[in-house]
Amino acid sequence: MSGEMLYTQSSPGMHEIVGVVTEVGHNVQKFKVGDKVGIGYFISSCLSCDNCKQDSENYCPQLVTTFNSSYPDGTPTYGGFSDKLVVNEHFAVRIPTKLPLDKVAPLLCAGIAVYNPLKEHGLNEPGKHLGVVGLGGLGHLAVKFAKAFGVKVTVISTSPDKEKEAIEKLGADSFIVSRDPEQMKAAMGTMDGILDTIAADHSLMPLFALLKTRGKLIALAGMTKPTELSLYPIMAGGKMLAGTLIGGVKDMQEMLSFAEEHNITAEVEVIGMDDVNIAMERLQKGDVRFRFVINVANSISLS
Amino acid sequence: MSGEMLYTQSSPGMHEIVGVVTEVGHNVQKFKVGDKVGIGYFISSCLSCDNCKQDSENYCPQLVTTFNSSYPDGTPTYGGFSDKLVVNEHFAVRIPTKLPLDKVAPLLCAGIAVYNPLKEHGLNEPGKHLGVVGLGGLGHLAVKFAKAFGVKVTVISTSPDKEKEAIEKLGADSFIVSRDPEQMKAAMGTMDGILDTIAADHSLMPLFALLKTRGKLIALAGMTKPTELSLYPIMAGGKMLAGTLIGGVKDMQEMLSFAEEHNITAEVEVIGMDDVNIAMERLQKGDVRFRFVINVANSISLS
Repeated sequence: MSGEMLYTQSSPGMHEIVGVVTEVGHNVQKFKVGDKVGIGYFISSCLSCDNCKQDSENYCPQLVTTFNSSYPDGTPTYGGFSDKLVVNEHFAVRIPTKLPLDKVAPLLCAGIAVYNPLKEHGLNEPGKHLGVVGLGGLGHLAVKFAKAFGVKVTVISTSPDKEKEAIEKLGADSFIVSRDPEQMKAAMGTMDGILDTIAADHSLMPLFALLKTRGKLIALAGMTKPTELSLYPIMAGGKMLAGTLIGGVKDMQEMLSFAEEHNITAEVEVIGMDDVNIAMERLQKGDVRFRFVINVANSISLS
Repeated sequence: MSGEMLYTQSSPGMHEIVGVVTEVGHNVQKFKVGDKVGIGYFISSCLSCDNCKQDSENYCPQLVTTFNSSYPDGTPTYGGFSDKLVVNEHFAVRIPTKLPLDKVAPLLCAGIAVYNPLKEHGLNEPGKHLGVVGLGGLGHLAVKFAKAFGVKVTVISTSPDKEKEAIEKLGADSFIVSRDPEQMKAAMGTMDGILDTIAADHSLMPLFALLKTRGKLIALAGMTKPTELSLYPIMAGGKMLAGTLIGGVKDMQEMLSFAEEHNITAEVEVIGMDDVNIAMERLQKGDVRFRFVINVANSISLS
């Protein structure tokens, strides 16, 4: 090994992986054995294109995702379902020592996925009003990060029973049931931005109506099918639809520092490898608050 | 009359109207009799909402469009099809004396519609690469304004026969026939922004493919039907779709100063009121290079 290091994982998902360095290559400079490190959505990029040079490896055309992809030489990537992982040090980030490994793991994808658009689109300024659509893995972290930035947060959800959790546990300022036309109407034109974390097919037009002039709707999850968009309501408010996909390595490290400073971690349910199938079934029913974390290396303490 | 003024028009369209002031109310301060003035897409707004206070009257919820609308008291608006027009001075702009009235008229809507998004979305910086979709009334002005900003311009059109005109007459740098997959493929990932001036129904996805990472597709014309959008290609490039609708009064005045400085006017065909029906028929066939201007008040010199 030269620029690579090996580490043992303690709480990996497919691509939200944290662990402890067990071995380093000759030229490794960022990390030493015993350091707590993490890997997110991608595990390699070309490092020479314009995107890579500008710390946006996440938009590299030769991006290798951590899971279900392959390196240029054909080697497949398996994500976090293994007890050891070898990685080029460039793509690993340092996990703040103050934060518990299990609760920090989901920040590596869900966390950066919500932190980056808030920053990139100027929705991290105190006094701004943000809508968060969906209160799952991404949504609950969006509430936490936005509140830490001093932003007013309204959660928009199809499930009225999430209101108490959104406000009392996560600190959201208000809650809208998206299926209630009266509540949606009352909130029209009030939001500077919206983070849409819903992957299920849905119309974006009711969300555009919630935005102020020049408001930004940020799509984070995509949908399985194309969605229908009417352009005039977007034009008539100078509004925009932006897509973002996680963030670069530098952004991830910055996000973790911010999380440490503001004590932001994910709400998780830690399971053992033996419970993966049960967890998958529960995931399909939406039965998780808010992220499963698998403790692969049971020998490692989680805090 | 108090804050209003009356003027006689020389080259009006529905809402691209220029003329000379013939009478002013007691409190009119911006203009005097004999001044050349113009009115664009809107003729009134509330002047008290956040948008109006921030010089974005174009996004006022109580906007009164110059044509086919009505004032709060119910008085209908007829646009430029009349030989005199009364207007609150706030909504009139000063026409630079150096520019010919007939050729400047289309700047009042088509001009501001392309100038404003270039500025608002940072696509007015020298060295940027802009795509202009469609070479009609808006498109030909987009090429002229963008070139004056020092931007590299590629015209994207379904009509190969517009290439010569785009490059030799309007100064575009290159031309792509949008129906040619090879040409579209060769231009993938090369543009910082695209102004889409096409109102006919079309897919936006091939246009997103032309954008660089974080590129911006700006919809200026709307479409009659909703358009289908796939979110993942937008997310995977950190791209965005923005809509803009003309600009505020201050933006319009600034645009006219810029046009004067860079000698930008529209390519027009001037007709008399008697030829309106023929012009409408030709418009339906797309047979105009690039804007018809009606000389309503034949007694007034056009220069």
